[in-house]
Amino acid sequence: MKIVVTGATGTIGKHIVAALEGKHEIIKVGLNNGDYQVDITDPASIHAAFEQIGAFDALINASGDVAFNQFEQLTQDEWQVGLSSKLMGQVNLAQAAVKYLNQGGSITLTSGIIADYPIAYGVSAATINGAVQHFVKAAATEMPNNIRINVVSPTLLTDSIEMYGDHFPGFHAADGKIVAQSYVRSVLGVETGQTFKVLAGN
Amino acid sequence: MKIVVTGATGTIGKHIVAALEGKHEIIKVGLNNGDYQVDITDPASIHAAFEQIGAFDALINASGDVAFNQFEQLTQDEWQVGLSSKLMGQVNLAQAAVKYLNQGGSITLTSGIIADYPIAYGVSAATINGAVQHFVKAAATEMPNNIRINVVSPTLLTDSIEMYGDHFPGFHAADGKIVAQSYVRSVLGVETGQTFKVLAGN
Repeated sequence: MKIVVTGATGTIGKHIVAALEGKHEIIKVGLNNGDYQVDITDPASIHAAFEQIGAFDALINASGDVAFNQFEQLTQDEWQVGLSSKLMGQVNLAQAAVKYLNQGGSITLTSGIIADYPIAYGVSAATINGAVQHFVKAAATEMPNNIRINVVSPTLLTDSIEMYGDHFPGFHAADGKIVAQSYVRSVLGVETGQTFKVLAGN
Repeated sequence: MKIVVTGATGTIGKHIVAALEGKHEIIKVGLNNGDYQVDITDPASIHAAFEQIGAFDALINASGDVAFNQFEQLTQDEWQVGLSSKLMGQVNLAQAAVKYLNQGGSITLTSGIIADYPIAYGVSAATINGAVQHFVKAAATEMPNNIRINVVSPTLLTDSIEMYGDHFPGFHAADGKIVAQSYVRSVLGVETGQTFKVLAGN
């Protein structure tokens, strides 16, 4: 299977690649690194890369930014980070991917536990991640060529405890290998329109 | 209780006003009509009106636009309608309202059944409405002065069957009076961070 992974060198992306490489052809895409460079906020940038990559069987996205701040302090520019990147960036990827995916292919996006369990400074992240989950449920009904679309919503990764753990007090962390399995399930399984929540497990 | 209703003359808004007026002071706000004119996509427009209205006890919003189109055909401009209006318009209203709401006040926003039950042409509406629901859940944890925030997610109104019924095949419609009760529950009750789904009832 030819699998395009955007955000391939990120914290989650590297675990996704590790879980799939060897058995599959992995095309690594990043903003500044990887086999191809893509700015997911720019549909033209996505199309340019996909045109070079050619037809593929699965798109997995593990990239997308969101700004963190207190509710009353969140500025329009901070909101726009999440709207342009983690929300519309993933919508852009999905809209472009359907033009390049083979029959029966799949799209797997990334949400995050904050969608369903609030943390301080996390209002924008909750909003944007929630939007992606509802997007996937609805978009699944309109996919051409038996293409499936799901989203993985992981808890804090053990790799990120040192950097972000204090923002997730008492949250159970998950090993990256466990999180990556939900992406594998989305790509190799049969489900569509689903949010795979990884709440814990290591 | 002094209650500001944005979108007061719309299909849902008029039922909300009917359910509350007489017992409460209702300030009607609209884009082009009502006691005050506000463009919810513009924070400055909201602040200007709230400054004139002065302190109040509840904000209810029943306005906000979303574009409808097939998933593959949805343009960036069409996505932007929902992002700017029904999503950020409601975020803008909430961020502004906390500066004017009295102690123990409330904010009630509007989602829609499409958030959870897909219809054709409804991918953007599902995404945006879902975002609003997740926003409210997270924002409730950061409200100052015991302010509460909820969202009502109504099914098709009986008033709208003639215009929109064909887009909601087999969906149960709800009378506007039933839908309005969920807004009353949000304003006069004690719950916060909730999505009140009105799936049927007439």
